[in-house]
Amino acid sequence: MSQLHAIAFGDLSLEQQASYSKTLSAEDIALFAATSGDVNPVHLDAAYASTTPFQEPIGHGMWLGALVSAAIATRMPGPGSVYRAQSLQFKQPIKVGDTATVTLTVTGLKPRVRLVTIGCEVHNQDGVLLAKGEAEVIAPAEGGVVQAPDLPKVTVER
Amino acid sequence: MSQLHAIAFGDLSLEQQASYSKTLSAEDIALFAATSGDVNPVHLDAAYASTTPFQEPIGHGMWLGALVSAAIATRMPGPGSVYRAQSLQFKQPIKVGDTATVTLTVTGLKPRVRLVTIGCEVHNQDGVLLAKGEAEVIAPAEGGVVQAPDLPKVTVER
Repeated sequence: MSQLHAIAFGDLSLEQQASYSKTLSAEDIALFAATSGDVNPVHLDAAYASTTPFQEPIGHGMWLGALVSAAIATRMPGPGSVYRAQSLQFKQPIKVGDTATVTLTVTGLKPRVRLVTIGCEVHNQDGVLLAKGEAEVIAPAEGGVVQAPDLPKVTVER
Repeated sequence: MSQLHAIAFGDLSLEQQASYSKTLSAEDIALFAATSGDVNPVHLDAAYASTTPFQEPIGHGMWLGALVSAAIATRMPGPGSVYRAQSLQFKQPIKVGDTATVTLTVTGLKPRVRLVTIGCEVHNQDGVLLAKGEAEVIAPAEGGVVQAPDLPKVTVER
């Protein structure tokens, strides 16, 4: 079991950054399809995907949104944050085996309501911008350490 | 295997609507955590969640974004769409057993680039607004029917 660090609003500063990375596996695509019901064949059917401009199965665009959300919940501000809004522009597809790195940058702080505005960029391992946007989050009033639950163990039937 | 209907840009009209529903299970939360790595205990740890204003585990906010994405990919415009952008405001949490219904409404059409602007609202079974936002999508040039892959079969270990 690992630990998650909550950053109190008062400990955040403009330009502060945090990052979060994950490599996309075929299993991740299957899990995203299962949890959302999004069975678009461009993600799940290699024969269909070969007929598209992408030529091979690509990850769901909103999987990148899920990574941004994970970055906010586990890195900055961390647990206790309340997610208010997110914008995302999808720039380039992510393929299986690619590593997406989310970079968060604090761009605004409104102390009265503890509202943090966070610039969000997602790049792949070659530095290609996959997605960008902005998050609005209510940061925790107090910092602290929270035990992180273990990742659920899941099995995908082939 | 079911079918997905792609709607060509030329067959879309202003105010056209489509909807998509899914009931949130504890398994869906586990799958979203596994695919994103978001182990925020407010979603996965009932003891921790009981200490929060929500009192019980809630779904990931971005799971609602995943449903919006699924609605666009499988309902309107359907397969062949290219997801360009999404904004989301998170209004209320979703709890296990709640049914989220995404309603999509065409709000803008730019024929030169086949760009469709879509208003997105997500309500629960009691009509409470959970999330809202706007999507920008390049619609397919041609309509048609695509075989939908089966949902991946996944097992969550308890």
